[in-house]
Amino acid sequence: MTLKDHFPILTWGRSYDRGAFGADLLAALIVTIMLIPQSLAYALLAGLPPEAGLYASIVPIILYALFGTSRALAVGPVAVVSLMTASALGDVAQQGTTGYAAAALTLAGMSGLLLLAMGLLRLGRLASFLSHPVVAGFITASGILIAASQLRHILGIDGGGHDLIHIARAMLNNIGDTNGPTVIIGAAALIFLFWVRRGFGPMLHRLGLGRTAVDIMVKAGPVFAVATSTWAVWQFGLQDRGVAIVGAVPQALPPFTLPPVPLELVRQLTLPAILISIIGFVESISVAQTLAAKTRDRIDPNQELLGLGAANIGAAFTGGFPVTGGFSRSVVNFDAGARTPAAGILTAGGLAFAAIALTPLIHFLPKATLAATIIVAVLSLVDLSILRTAWAYAKADFAAVAATILLTLLVGVETGVTAGVAVSLLLHLNRTSRPHIAEVGRVPGTEHFRNILRHEVETQPHVLALRPDESLYFANARVLEDLILDRVTRDRAIRHVILLCSAVNEVDLSALESLESLNERLGDMNVALHLSEVKGPVMDRLKRSHLLETLRGDVHLSHHSAVRALDVPPLPTAA
Amino acid sequence: MTLKDHFPILTWGRSYDRGAFGADLLAALIVTIMLIPQSLAYALLAGLPPEAGLYASIVPIILYALFGTSRALAVGPVAVVSLMTASALGDVAQQGTTGYAAAALTLAGMSGLLLLAMGLLRLGRLASFLSHPVVAGFITASGILIAASQLRHILGIDGGGHDLIHIARAMLNNIGDTNGPTVIIGAAALIFLFWVRRGFGPMLHRLGLGRTAVDIMVKAGPVFAVATSTWAVWQFGLQDRGVAIVGAVPQALPPFTLPPVPLELVRQLTLPAILISIIGFVESISVAQTLAAKTRDRIDPNQELLGLGAANIGAAFTGGFPVTGGFSRSVVNFDAGARTPAAGILTAGGLAFAAIALTPLIHFLPKATLAATIIVAVLSLVDLSILRTAWAYAKADFAAVAATILLTLLVGVETGVTAGVAVSLLLHLNRTSRPHIAEVGRVPGTEHFRNILRHEVETQPHVLALRPDESLYFANARVLEDLILDRVTRDRAIRHVILLCSAVNEVDLSALESLESLNERLGDMNVALHLSEVKGPVMDRLKRSHLLETLRGDVHLSHHSAVRALDVPPLPTAA
Repeated sequence: MTLKDHFPILTWGRSYDRGAFGADLLAALIVTIMLIPQSLAYALLAGLPPEAGLYASIVPIILYALFGTSRALAVGPVAVVSLMTASALGDVAQQGTTGYAAAALTLAGMSGLLLLAMGLLRLGRLASFLSHPVVAGFITASGILIAASQLRHILGIDGGGHDLIHIARAMLNNIGDTNGPTVIIGAAALIFLFWVRRGFGPMLHRLGLGRTAVDIMVKAGPVFAVATSTWAVWQFGLQDRGVAIVGAVPQALPPFTLPPVPLELVRQLTLPAILISIIGFVESISVAQTLAAKTRDRIDPNQELLGLGAANIGAAFTGGFPVTGGFSRSVVNFDAGARTPAAGILTAGGLAFAAIALTPLIHFLPKATLAATIIVAVLSLVDLSILRTAWAYAKADFAAVAATILLTLLVGVETGVTAGVAVSLLLHLNRTSRPHIAEVGRVPGTEHFRNILRHEVETQPHVLALRPDESLYFANARVLEDLILDRVTRDRAIRHVILLCSAVNEVDLSALESLESLNERLGDMNVALHLSEVKGPVMDRLKRSHLLETLRGDVHLSHHSAVRALDVPPLPTAA
Repeated sequence: MTLKDHFPILTWGRSYDRGAFGADLLAALIVTIMLIPQSLAYALLAGLPPEAGLYASIVPIILYALFGTSRALAVGPVAVVSLMTASALGDVAQQGTTGYAAAALTLAGMSGLLLLAMGLLRLGRLASFLSHPVVAGFITASGILIAASQLRHILGIDGGGHDLIHIARAMLNNIGDTNGPTVIIGAAALIFLFWVRRGFGPMLHRLGLGRTAVDIMVKAGPVFAVATSTWAVWQFGLQDRGVAIVGAVPQALPPFTLPPVPLELVRQLTLPAILISIIGFVESISVAQTLAAKTRDRIDPNQELLGLGAANIGAAFTGGFPVTGGFSRSVVNFDAGARTPAAGILTAGGLAFAAIALTPLIHFLPKATLAATIIVAVLSLVDLSILRTAWAYAKADFAAVAATILLTLLVGVETGVTAGVAVSLLLHLNRTSRPHIAEVGRVPGTEHFRNILRHEVETQPHVLALRPDESLYFANARVLEDLILDRVTRDRAIRHVILLCSAVNEVDLSALESLESLNERLGDMNVALHLSEVKGPVMDRLKRSHLLETLRGDVHLSHHSAVRALDVPPLPTAA
């Protein structure tokens, strides 16, 4: 490891030139325009004051630029992590209190330290324990949950809840308080934003505008909605007619904040911090890898952990909340031509300018508009086709994705993702605990041995040849023993049992003890146990045990040689 | 399924005769003598009044006799489950309160229902998810913990705690209160009981007594210690000199009790009930199978779940606490010649007689004597050799057993066993997430293909043949893809990649998506992906996906035919 490996900036910084700067500046401009309303909106989603969204986008972006390996990844508040933040903080403090905002700092700091630790321990691989169906199901369910949680802002009513049941119950209780002017603003913003996505862009294309121009105008849609609705509130004094507005936002650079660390709070936030770190990392790395593949760049997962860890620690000390690499902003950054992480630093500059200069302008910004931008953004995350794909391919994968979606929607994000992982693991164990064990025979005229149920093969009456199609370990240790003893007890002609171990990739201690007991009990019945085609690593391990010394049969390199060696008159049957 | 399958009594009851009755009666007598002090002692360990131990041995034994499949298994309070009960109840109520005893009923009822449910769902296999190292480590650590927790009764001081740290701290705080007479009784009982086990039995043998007579006399050792120390307390009025005694015990048959089921209590006891059910089941089934093997009997795990479930529900309604099949009492029952489960019913009769007639006699029984019987019994559970065995065989197994022992001792039984299972699973995932992937070549003159690093084999420059020695699933889905892309990028001569799938027992949805992406990206590089020796069940699954349609290479029955098919001039290199 050299310094360069941990500070990618030392690589790209050396060849940075005016061309790269120009490209990065344009990308930064577009991303900044997009990020201003998005940052405010995700702060709202996380239950925090709007400026927290801006703060969470400034220092973290710079720190990621210093440590991260992706050229295009834009780090900041994202929808799913903001939802998880709200869910975690809702258990420890009341929204709107200083304790709530302080706990957000603690959560960001803990996530940052966890990510850093995983990076230093090179545990990037751990993210693969979240299976694809679980991640896809979780993202989809989170999108639905986020959209549902924002509906109350469109209606202008009180509410809350971190699962569909509580959200719906709170909405039904308050539906009578629906505020007319808020609904008009919210519905108009929703319709406008959907139209910008679906109708406006294609229309501009047909009018012959270039791709970049169209892109900028589409991305500016939320800014336009924000400006127009803010103006409308101010013009007609709608804040006095019940329209909830953002209100006073401090006009300042990110403050220096110290996350509080009382033991009880740390204990309560440990599980959420772990889940936020892992989900955030998985989301971020998949975005980074998708974009890197397009330019044949390499993403180093362990270095990414360091970059995201630094970004979150930055958020903790500058009034932010947990952040990660976001999909939409990164794609925008990439499409707008960002060439180096410097684009991120320039974006941070743009947002810092917004925090100082533009915050007075958003005083009258209605929360309904922010809610509309969130809803439009997250509905693109919702993709239920994974259910159909999984159902068609494997019921176990379907069970994992269905459990994740249902529990996320009905119980909450933490339960949902935890249950998804647990279901994946249990189903994996369950499958491997009932291994496919084929009885094999020789394909005539060859040295190949195949399942007697699927192929026309030759067998010998005094030899039972079995191929366990699974590693032998604790979850299935006794299955093979029980099966063989059952077969040998019923068929008295069997004098030799050969285990064809070509598919056995591991024999753990539980399975070893089962094999030793099998060998002994077969010995009592005057039957010899043989092994064939044992893999090198498994053989190395077995040599450290007593099994090979006590084995009544032999170990054969190939199953063919095992069968040929036993192709002699059978041993005499025991008296 | 017939009625006979669920009521084994219908099988053995039909041929029950006077000979069987005589054998069962003798066994019952010996087991009763042994169980009276043991039941009282395990009630003390569980933190319950002594009569609860007798009650937990009466109705549960009868119910197990009706539903269980083991002839010799003796069901009742056992050391490890009593310790787990104390640990679970300590979190919800104060020892000595009626709430504590009532919660014990709830815990027994919940365990019973869980066991019944597992039996009806035929989930007996689930017990195998506890690996052998975890169970062995847990039993050993529990033995140490139990012995440590009983030391305070030997010293006659207050104490408490469910892990070594708390137990030691409480003892050190109170060591100044050590009661002289109690220490004398406790130490004498300890020395006497150890001597009975180690010295007395062999001595009687040398004197020429028969095995059965020696056995009865050794088993009566605790009864003798109980009788002598009770007499001493009564004779010398030691209860007034600070010796803690059992005190008044109601003279009655087991009462009818209703376990309370407030939601909060049920919630708090859910995890402990699950762990107690599984640990109890694993302990019981291994005892039952060990004994059944000696008589070539068959134990049906799912029917055992029903038997243990019924026993625990019986305990819940008759003033007991969680029970399971115990090792020592079952071995005694077996050695004493029990022929049918009727021996259990007769034992229940003996204990019912004790509950009615003998309870006044134990008023002056010192708790120190009971503690001594517990300590002597559990130290036989302690076997640290599993640490050495595991270390020699596999570091992963060692990690699981070490984590189980350490966490059980230092944090508690629930954390210990949960962590053991979690560590087993994570290490299993970790191993399979870094699969051994061998590059293979042909053993000259044969149709066999072996690892190029371990054997002298032939390869072709335009063919990369890899054998992943693991099922492809979410935990390792991307490893293979990354490895192949890396190899193909570096070695431009490669035109064909063959995956030798003889060790691939499963391809889940995550891995399928990775293979599809691999196929596509290899296609971009003008490299064909082939599969060989795909197992039947995996092939059936792949046929339901789009992979085989889009595959640029072929699927070959044998790796040999794949290599022969590609043994042609290589495809032209892409421009």
